[in-house]
Amino acid sequence: MRISTLDLTNDGVTLTAYVLDASNEMPNARTRPAVLIFPGGAYRACSDREAEPVAMSFLAEGYHAFVLRYSLNGNAAFPKPLNDAEEALELIRMRSEEWHVDPEKVAVCGFSAGGHLAAALGTMGRVRPNAMILGYPCIVASMGDILPAPIPGVDEAVDSLTPPAYIFHTYEDTLVPVGNALAMAAAMDRERRPFELHIFQNGAHGLSLSRPVTSGGMRSLSDPDAAKWFGLCVAWLRNQFGEFAADRDSVLLSETVAEYSVDIQLGVLWKNDACRKLVLGKLPMLEESPQLKDAMGVPLRTIIEFGGGLLTNEDVLDLDQQLKEIQVIS
Amino acid sequence: MRISTLDLTNDGVTLTAYVLDASNEMPNARTRPAVLIFPGGAYRACSDREAEPVAMSFLAEGYHAFVLRYSLNGNAAFPKPLNDAEEALELIRMRSEEWHVDPEKVAVCGFSAGGHLAAALGTMGRVRPNAMILGYPCIVASMGDILPAPIPGVDEAVDSLTPPAYIFHTYEDTLVPVGNALAMAAAMDRERRPFELHIFQNGAHGLSLSRPVTSGGMRSLSDPDAAKWFGLCVAWLRNQFGEFAADRDSVLLSETVAEYSVDIQLGVLWKNDACRKLVLGKLPMLEESPQLKDAMGVPLRTIIEFGGGLLTNEDVLDLDQQLKEIQVIS
Amino acid sequence: MRISTLDLTNDGVTLTAYVLDASNEMPNARTRPAVLIFPGGAYRACSDREAEPVAMSFLAEGYHAFVLRYSLNGNAAFPKPLNDAEEALELIRMRSEEWHVDPEKVAVCGFSAGGHLAAALGTMGRVRPNAMILGYPCIVASMGDILPAPIPGVDEAVDSLTPPAYIFHTYEDTLVPVGNALAMAAAMDRERRPFELHIFQNGAHGLSLSRPVTSGGMRSLSDPDAAKWFGLCVAWLRNQFGEFAADRDSVLLSETVAEYSVDIQLGVLWKNDACRKLVLGKLPMLEESPQLKDAMGVPLRTIIEFGGGLLTNEDVLDLDQQLKEIQVIS
Amino acid sequence: MRISTLDLTNDGVTLTAYVLDASNEMPNARTRPAVLIFPGGAYRACSDREAEPVAMSFLAEGYHAFVLRYSLNGNAAFPKPLNDAEEALELIRMRSEEWHVDPEKVAVCGFSAGGHLAAALGTMGRVRPNAMILGYPCIVASMGDILPAPIPGVDEAVDSLTPPAYIFHTYEDTLVPVGNALAMAAAMDRERRPFELHIFQNGAHGLSLSRPVTSGGMRSLSDPDAAKWFGLCVAWLRNQFGEFAADRDSVLLSETVAEYSVDIQLGVLWKNDACRKLVLGKLPMLEESPQLKDAMGVPLRTIIEFGGGLLTNEDVLDLDQQLKEIQVIS
Repeated sequence: MRISTLDLTNDGVTLTAYVLDASNEMPNARTRPAVLIFPGGAYRACSDREAEPVAMSFLAEGYHAFVLRYSLNGNAAFPKPLNDAEEALELIRMRSEEWHVDPEKVAVCGFSAGGHLAAALGTMGRVRPNAMILGYPCIVASMGDILPAPIPGVDEAVDSLTPPAYIFHTYEDTLVPVGNALAMAAAMDRERRPFELHIFQNGAHGLSLSRPVTSGGMRSLSDPDAAKWFGLCVAWLRNQFGEFAADRDSVLLSETVAEYSVDIQLGVLWKNDACRKLVLGKLPMLEESPQLKDAMGVPLRTIIEFGGGLLTNEDVLDLDQQLKEIQVIS
Repeated sequence: MRISTLDLTNDGVTLTAYVLDASNEMPNARTRPAVLIFPGGAYRACSDREAEPVAMSFLAEGYHAFVLRYSLNGNAAFPKPLNDAEEALELIRMRSEEWHVDPEKVAVCGFSAGGHLAAALGTMGRVRPNAMILGYPCIVASMGDILPAPIPGVDEAVDSLTPPAYIFHTYEDTLVPVGNALAMAAAMDRERRPFELHIFQNGAHGLSLSRPVTSGGMRSLSDPDAAKWFGLCVAWLRNQFGEFAADRDSVLLSETVAEYSVDIQLGVLWKNDACRKLVLGKLPMLEESPQLKDAMGVPLRTIIEFGGGLLTNEDVLDLDQQLKEIQVIS
Repeated sequence: MRISTLDLTNDGVTLTAYVLDASNEMPNARTRPAVLIFPGGAYRACSDREAEPVAMSFLAEGYHAFVLRYSLNGNAAFPKPLNDAEEALELIRMRSEEWHVDPEKVAVCGFSAGGHLAAALGTMGRVRPNAMILGYPCIVASMGDILPAPIPGVDEAVDSLTPPAYIFHTYEDTLVPVGNALAMAAAMDRERRPFELHIFQNGAHGLSLSRPVTSGGMRSLSDPDAAKWFGLCVAWLRNQFGEFAADRDSVLLSETVAEYSVDIQLGVLWKNDACRKLVLGKLPMLEESPQLKDAMGVPLRTIIEFGGGLLTNEDVLDLDQQLKEIQVIS
Repeated sequence: MRISTLDLTNDGVTLTAYVLDASNEMPNARTRPAVLIFPGGAYRACSDREAEPVAMSFLAEGYHAFVLRYSLNGNAAFPKPLNDAEEALELIRMRSEEWHVDPEKVAVCGFSAGGHLAAALGTMGRVRPNAMILGYPCIVASMGDILPAPIPGVDEAVDSLTPPAYIFHTYEDTLVPVGNALAMAAAMDRERRPFELHIFQNGAHGLSLSRPVTSGGMRSLSDPDAAKWFGLCVAWLRNQFGEFAADRDSVLLSETVAEYSVDIQLGVLWKNDACRKLVLGKLPMLEESPQLKDAMGVPLRTIIEFGGGLLTNEDVLDLDQQLKEIQVIS
């Protein structure tokens, strides 16, 4: 994984990119969905508890993650934070090839004030994410009364371009009333935009992942029931973006090869009749092997070695030479 | 998170450190357990599928992660790989303060040949990990027949210093027979060393996390039942190392403060009678507030702002000044 | 378990009781919470898919279950179905001693039209349940347009006596719009009555448990994500009613005994000094046994037998006789 | 559900049958797998904690359940208990039509001594179950030393007819050593009979479901990690027996009908061109309805009513009459 932090246009605004490594062993994950995270903090701060730990959880699901630290306090007046969000989203899509991101599978995920910003991007952005995840979000305009600057009511802004939403909140939240989540869900329903909504009865405001590790040590921030929001969210996101493919009977790491050899996977050799015949001539027991299917993704040399010295070193060298002489057909 | 890759003593051997950020908002995670990962690959390679994705999954659980790429092929003869493992473990413990690692909570986690190396470290290492996680491991000496060099049978080496083990395997594994896991479990039982063992019926050799994202696209490497091994493993590891604390009724970010002010958490001010009296004089409604408990972890200024302009700016300045004049008692 | 079906006052209305056995081995489950189930069917039928299988799921959680088949079609005009529900609830509470029900822990659980009836009982009943579970419920009065008779809008009826609610629905439901669930949640919030709400994006109307076994074979009725509603519901219900106790270090089946003997649990004998001394005289190895704690719930005779003939039959008879001569102290 | 208790041949031996109702609404569950449960108790008793609650858990999964109370104490000498088990299994298969059991999908599930009996049936029975679930089982012959009579070592008896096994145990078990489970797994592996094995580190002997409700109040009998055995077991059993079908796009409750009418499901009418044309003549809006697919399983009368009076009562009567005149084609 590579981590880099980029300065965006507005003062003090940064985007931290967590980009997973591509590997030839994982051809089904060469491009990946991404999640752009907006931590909360009443437009006065960006909480660490809602930044890196959330990124880690999405990375573990195989998604790239990005954390935006957006305009705050004196700079919090709209549209400044929205501009930060738009810039971050555009940047991710612009550099999607370099970062191995699928540009049509970029979700935003925001908490509290960051949830407001995520919903604003989804409803009013000049660019829109492909899905939005809203954790105990500020939604209605009146929340602006307790923030550094007025905010647009994002429920009123839901339109036909608004992406599907996953919303969670707790009934017990005393800082951002649960009515915010209900207002957003009602607005999505009004426009018949797809949504999923989970309101847990227990749990205080600012749960993040609602687990001990993100609780800051506070009992009310690690409710085990509310912690189910993340698993539910990933299941929902998979429905939006699809699952990584796992539909091949064996892994062919290198469909096209420069030349055949004993270091090539059996499955690749098997597709070429000359190679196949040659290998079976030396290793006739392969034909009957119950493990043949499993072995297709394994280089021939490994099979020979795992087989416990099926061939002498000399035979292996000889076989390797003969394979190299067969012309590659792609 | 900071990522760094260190060269170890032996040729081509590297240790990649994934170290999570410490944050004042997460005082209960200032030091964390760590997991040292040994990918598999028949002592001929270190599989990417069993490296970074596994690290990500442990990071998401709040553990630091380290990936060792150890001595292979011509260098695979024991004790070379074991020396790499010992060096890595010593390094983590030596730099534990810098990396915020709890040096008594370092687990190893190895797969296939890497599982052999993890078990070797746990049974024969001059330093020992505090727990070991063994995924479809090579255990018995006869597995050496198909590896580049002979290996010690680690079942025979289980001793009274061997740490608790979590072992998983599949009955269907045709490359490393399930008898390896059974032999290790029997050896642990013989020495009455604690262990947990999960043998799933289905799933091919080399499952890694047994999820689509780590399958390399191969159906047989993403069995949904075998994928439960990771959740079971984390539950087991929490039993060994304990959970992050979440036992406080409110987050006090800064128990000791240089001076009192409106930027100090209410809970800190509340512990000083003079501060408490002063605040209640200005904000008598706090006393009755049903949200008082939740508010203890919140800086007073935020409470005032969230309250929707409970005080004029002038009053806030005034209150701030008066708080600063109260002597800090620790 | 005993199953009985009772005829209630109104024509064709029946209450089927599934009452779990009490057992001396399970003193912590001598009384249990109960769930009263109202299947759906547009006040025209009571669906089998939402009856017995739902009862089975709550029985597996250790709760007694009751299924009400209420007034339908020509008899569906309110308050007839509500009267059925009230009668059923009163009956369960009246016979709570016989049925080993905790009368303060009776939840209702209704689906679709049955969800309307459950919410009606919770908001307008002359008796009220202690919790209500509402599955894709009809809530608003306008749903009456497609039912055999007008229905009261139960959202408008939420009052301070309304018990906590667990509500689930799907966005995709085309028969009963998701706005019904949102209206109920908003009404609960307005009255500050606790609730939990789960709206899954996918899944058709009439999911029941959303599992293959309750799907009637229909793909759209076994969505694996929506199926999580039941586990979430049980977790919520445990928060309302508490968990069965499991706080003793050993099971003492019979705290008070008529006489001491070798058939009495070790833990009971251990509390009497004379018994303890007598047993240790014959079985001194018990004092040091690492299994002593586990053995406290086991009758002494079993311990002797499990110990592999620790005593001769004669010795056992002798010990039994001597124990019987010791006076019982309670 | 019907519950009945049958006396078997040997003295005091009973089989309690818990048979789920068949329903026309659940055509995919007309026949079901069954689980035959053998509670534990050292061949001296049959524990209630391992009887009804286990039956309830399998019933909730849609399986019929049977509890055998087998020969004990003075009657425990083999082959008496084995004969009881054979008789129970034969009885279930003989009455499979009456009880709606799939006779090729009968699993046994035994605990402790009952686990021994289950394994004996699976390895030595004159009839064999189709799968076996062994909870902390007595396996090796030497366990007979602490039982009322010698027992055959069932590990030695594993043969090519032995059905797949699911085995669980805990390392901490002090009454029946974990070596029993390891011996059984090794024997299955030796004969290459499929198995799944879960050994949890924590949890005392006699866990049953390892949940508070089955703990008898004892802390050591409700370990939350060990409680995962049941979910793992059901997943495994589904792999053996298959899942209930849920592959139809709509539920057709009655494929063959005596006559057409407005009380017949739309999907059935739709298959007859004359019916379809007639219905569309009266209700042209159906053709365009986005809910058409969902409506296929719904009787036409309900659709009309749900549609909010799409037709007058007179029109409905008229349509009904015309439908009845169309000849049924099957």
